[in-house]
Amino acid sequence: MKQEQNVSSLQQQTKQLRGAIRSAQHTGPTSGLATGAMQGNVVILPAEWANEFLLYCQKNPVSCPLLGVSEVGNFTLPELGDDIDMRYDVPEYLVYRDGEKVDSCVDIADLWQDDFVAFVLGCSFSFENALSQAGLTPRNIEQNVNVSMYESSIPTVPAGRFFGNTVVTMRPYQPKDAIQAIQITARFPKAHGSPLHFGNPEEIGIEDLSQPDFGEAVEIKEKEVPIFWACGVTPQVAIRNAKPPICITHAPGKMLITDLLDTDLAVL
Amino acid sequence: MKQEQNVSSLQQQTKQLRGAIRSAQHTGPTSGLATGAMQGNVVILPAEWANEFLLYCQKNPVSCPLLGVSEVGNFTLPELGDDIDMRYDVPEYLVYRDGEKVDSCVDIADLWQDDFVAFVLGCSFSFENALSQAGLTPRNIEQNVNVSMYESSIPTVPAGRFFGNTVVTMRPYQPKDAIQAIQITARFPKAHGSPLHFGNPEEIGIEDLSQPDFGEAVEIKEKEVPIFWACGVTPQVAIRNAKPPICITHAPGKMLITDLLDTDLAVL
Repeated sequence: MKQEQNVSSLQQQTKQLRGAIRSAQHTGPTSGLATGAMQGNVVILPAEWANEFLLYCQKNPVSCPLLGVSEVGNFTLPELGDDIDMRYDVPEYLVYRDGEKVDSCVDIADLWQDDFVAFVLGCSFSFENALSQAGLTPRNIEQNVNVSMYESSIPTVPAGRFFGNTVVTMRPYQPKDAIQAIQITARFPKAHGSPLHFGNPEEIGIEDLSQPDFGEAVEIKEKEVPIFWACGVTPQVAIRNAKPPICITHAPGKMLITDLLDTDLAVL
Repeated sequence: MKQEQNVSSLQQQTKQLRGAIRSAQHTGPTSGLATGAMQGNVVILPAEWANEFLLYCQKNPVSCPLLGVSEVGNFTLPELGDDIDMRYDVPEYLVYRDGEKVDSCVDIADLWQDDFVAFVLGCSFSFENALSQAGLTPRNIEQNVNVSMYESSIPTVPAGRFFGNTVVTMRPYQPKDAIQAIQITARFPKAHGSPLHFGNPEEIGIEDLSQPDFGEAVEIKEKEVPIFWACGVTPQVAIRNAKPPICITHAPGKMLITDLLDTDLAVL
């Protein structure tokens, strides 16, 4: 009974948050909001580019774990939420033309094309709830900022015109807590799973942790080690390289809120 | 059929190795031998001290995971191997009197007492096989030396007269491999499970990795990080502190070979 109430209360929160995003009342980061509801990274491409991108995701399941793909030209994604409208339900969209970011906007109703295919990829926010419940609240949530993201030197596997390095999120932990965090996040393979690296950032091509490429820097305390997970912003690097005539993504940290639960992604 | 042959061949290896140990032909370390057969740490105490030690193990399941306890005065342990004789089946025994190590010997037939209780604890060698199968062969196996062991500053939970710090084993890995090793060893909670620490040894009271307290030092290559797991030699520190009139243990790295399989310890 208690659990039913909780789920029902979460469903309400999810609908409310998605409603606030749809009406452009909420245009900020979504980390820590509607806790328990699965959030997703978004990539929208013309059909002519969609198959190559689908293959890119298949070849890079850790950075690009596919949760859903829309029908061509269809802006709904009923398997992720009964009322989802991909034209409005992301707090902030980025518009890329020929690989260059040219605009950001709170809806893409005017940009939607009949040949668009929308992809939703798993997001590390799905395991942040599990980390918090284990007493390992990520620093970005403690500091109420967007998670730190860096373009690393870890290459992805190319597919067609898509290629590039992996974008990673960073959360600092003491080694003992990091060992637990590795085990907790391993249970979420569709949300990037266990980390790719810990310790020396230079080993994965990151020169300065205080200068993230996306999101905000967080404090790293004494004895803490930076832990790096793959990030769903990785496709945005591949899109920059592939240069499709148009591509629309979410703005880093500002995700699609789905009706599914983070726990739906957990294995074991 | 293939698997049956493998198991039967392992059973043969196990019997042969235990036979060689029993007849004092093999008195060396057992790491990497009879691969797949579960090995155990050994502690033998008078009954008057056994209940407190049992409680110590219960309170410290990561460093002291109990696999078997003998009947008082009985040197067999049929649940771990149908012909096990705790007086002969360890390659080298250490004899402690009043907490001081006073002797080592290849059998304890002359020392056996009617009130002795034998404890067998899980050993990290059980997960070394799984690490090797994943391409993460521990350096101590590569270098064919006894694993490096250190007395750390991580306290155990005291029970009765038993108290002391945790002894840890160390295996170096690159961060990417360490993340995988953490997940693999987490599947073996009865063999110390996931690590306690990684990185800076001083944080757990280890000043010089080249000077292990037991076993031998191994090479740490560039970009590798030392990873520390709890070790079944931990009770030997608690015995030094508790000072029972007599206590017999295995010599570090020279374990009891059981009929059980490492995989019997695996969860998930």
